[in-house]
Amino acid sequence: MRIVQKFGGTSMGGVARIRETAAIVRREHERGHQLAVVVSAMAGETNRLLALAHEMDEYASPEETDVLLATGEQCSAALLAIELQRLGLKARSFTGAQAGLLTNNSHGRARIESIDPGHIVAALDDGCIAVITGFQGVDTAGRISTLGRGGSDTSAVALAIALKADACDIYTDVDGIYTTDPRIVPEARKIERISYEEMLEFASLGAKVLQTRSVGLAMKYRMPIHLRSSFHDVRGSMVCEEDEDMEKACVTGVAYNRNEAKITLQGIPDRPGIASGVFAPVSDADINVDVIVQNISEHGLTDITFTVSREDYPRTMEIMHQHCADMNAKGVAGSDDVAKVSIIGVGMRSHAGVAQTMFRTLADGGINIEMITTSEIKVTVVISERDVDKAIRLLHQAFELDAEQA
Amino acid sequence: MRIVQKFGGTSMGGVARIRETAAIVRREHERGHQLAVVVSAMAGETNRLLALAHEMDEYASPEETDVLLATGEQCSAALLAIELQRLGLKARSFTGAQAGLLTNNSHGRARIESIDPGHIVAALDDGCIAVITGFQGVDTAGRISTLGRGGSDTSAVALAIALKADACDIYTDVDGIYTTDPRIVPEARKIERISYEEMLEFASLGAKVLQTRSVGLAMKYRMPIHLRSSFHDVRGSMVCEEDEDMEKACVTGVAYNRNEAKITLQGIPDRPGIASGVFAPVSDADINVDVIVQNISEHGLTDITFTVSREDYPRTMEIMHQHCADMNAKGVAGSDDVAKVSIIGVGMRSHAGVAQTMFRTLADGGINIEMITTSEIKVTVVISERDVDKAIRLLHQAFELDAEQA
Repeated sequence: MRIVQKFGGTSMGGVARIRETAAIVRREHERGHQLAVVVSAMAGETNRLLALAHEMDEYASPEETDVLLATGEQCSAALLAIELQRLGLKARSFTGAQAGLLTNNSHGRARIESIDPGHIVAALDDGCIAVITGFQGVDTAGRISTLGRGGSDTSAVALAIALKADACDIYTDVDGIYTTDPRIVPEARKIERISYEEMLEFASLGAKVLQTRSVGLAMKYRMPIHLRSSFHDVRGSMVCEEDEDMEKACVTGVAYNRNEAKITLQGIPDRPGIASGVFAPVSDADINVDVIVQNISEHGLTDITFTVSREDYPRTMEIMHQHCADMNAKGVAGSDDVAKVSIIGVGMRSHAGVAQTMFRTLADGGINIEMITTSEIKVTVVISERDVDKAIRLLHQAFELDAEQA
Repeated sequence: MRIVQKFGGTSMGGVARIRETAAIVRREHERGHQLAVVVSAMAGETNRLLALAHEMDEYASPEETDVLLATGEQCSAALLAIELQRLGLKARSFTGAQAGLLTNNSHGRARIESIDPGHIVAALDDGCIAVITGFQGVDTAGRISTLGRGGSDTSAVALAIALKADACDIYTDVDGIYTTDPRIVPEARKIERISYEEMLEFASLGAKVLQTRSVGLAMKYRMPIHLRSSFHDVRGSMVCEEDEDMEKACVTGVAYNRNEAKITLQGIPDRPGIASGVFAPVSDADINVDVIVQNISEHGLTDITFTVSREDYPRTMEIMHQHCADMNAKGVAGSDDVAKVSIIGVGMRSHAGVAQTMFRTLADGGINIEMITTSEIKVTVVISERDVDKAIRLLHQAFELDAEQA
């Protein structure tokens, strides 16, 4: 099989960890696989380099910051290649440019335009293990670009697609994605197969194992992602196309995010364009709005409530107070002690009453629901932060997530 | 004027030093010059990266070591570009590959094959200051290569030639090349103009301001090198073609190197091929032999004496003892407390008796000469290390080097 492996910063964090990572590469090589290995910078290195750029100039240009940051992965790729060679394996490193990874010109958060994998294919066909710098490419003008935080996952998936690989193995410090956080629910179970859609929801809900962009890309090209442990040689979670087995469980997992704050604009005139009027200044300030709920209008007035991440709360409140008058709102209220709990599952599509089960379970537990949003495969509620652990335990139990998968 | 500037590791050693370096670049830019700036890695960075490679594998491949080392200059080039932009100047960084610097495949000590300066010229013509990573290029297979220690000087001179620059300004922590070491002879004088040939002798004799290769290259293409201070905006030493003025002084300077050891092979049969027999095992051990003197043969037997750097002395003695029998030598003797003192000057060509003045000066000072070699523009003697300071003072005086240049 042809496999793309991806190792993050922790796996590259120093000589000892790189030796362990090389041992995994060798193990898979000895299983007869052709391997392209995508690596991140050593843990902490990207932050160190970024601090250096900012020490030089708080407003350092994204183009030159990219040139600086790109050295992080170049170092770790070289070191892994050196270690693989020490183990007697044929290996060589490739920068993003050498790997043919072409991006647009949005430095600091570039998008991959295309990959010309000729050099990598030639190396693989020559029996060589290709070690490729993640997170970076080269723009149309030949300048080094970076893909933004978590970009190495995206590099790996994109490369797997370009190489027509059989799978993209993403190594992490956990051995897969769980039905919920095992620190809260000890009975939480590893999910063996999870659909791209569900994984997208998990990823965007704060499960930090996979970057959202990389899942979207894998879904588009149907590239299986194997989320697996860099500590134990066991099967992890396979992120892949929805299959019949998956239909059996109506809920796959419970995700949560404590880092939420909610803001309500009270009594604003309910007319077209009002939502865009509310969110334009927030978006201009580069603040990411998460859940949005607009209540039913009474007497031509409506309330809009939305959540932002907790660190953006003070700035967002400030912006809302500034714009309150412009929008003819009666008032602004907010609190930063809320959290988000979601149930996720492609099975919801074919199972009625899943949301109702969720609401009743929370009600029975005496937990007040402050906001609700739903998508086709997810129901999210915003609740008080102090109820999060209890809510997760109750939901995990209600949907029988601790039971063996059928 | 179009000028290539080169700044070494000390000038790039941290944020504060990079700001000072950028101020120099701005000063020359404001004088109306088109500038291509070649930079080394931050002081200590190349050694840190090399130590990391060796920690990974003592025998790390030169190819991957180059990938690792090249990040050093990439960081400093990006940081200098960031600082120049902060000062409101138009600047961008270029890696060796982006600058079109093509080398052969001798990784770790690659030689420049050609430079395609198209991108740099375009940047300069666009009013941009080009900041280029020294020390590195790309080989014919597209892999990153490095030029070996001091390679940034060579990068700068080669780039100056390719860009048809008016001069190559090399910034150092001294303000030029002196008639001798001012720490030994306070009357030592800065040499305003020095020929390439003389500079080559100074460089190869241990004056650490310029790398020998870069001087050879500048000489071949008649590129003037301006050796100047990064602390004071004063005229330094111009390394250029020999001119009539230079002829007036018969000796330009006195160089020395304390780091010498001498070894004598006694009573070996004087027949063709014996020298190669002596030096083959030394060269095989990657030991650099410096001065070689073969004495007149007596009764078909001869003595060969040569010097090596002091750190190679124990290994060289060991090798000589091993091969003593093969070469039918009567014995091996050596000492590691010798030093080398040279007088240099293109004027020697037209002035008789320069060597004789040197020998007499040393004899009058009671200094014993152990070995002598001469070239067209240099006389070197090997003496006891304890006599070095005295010898330099006497010679500096004897050749009137403290006098104003005519």
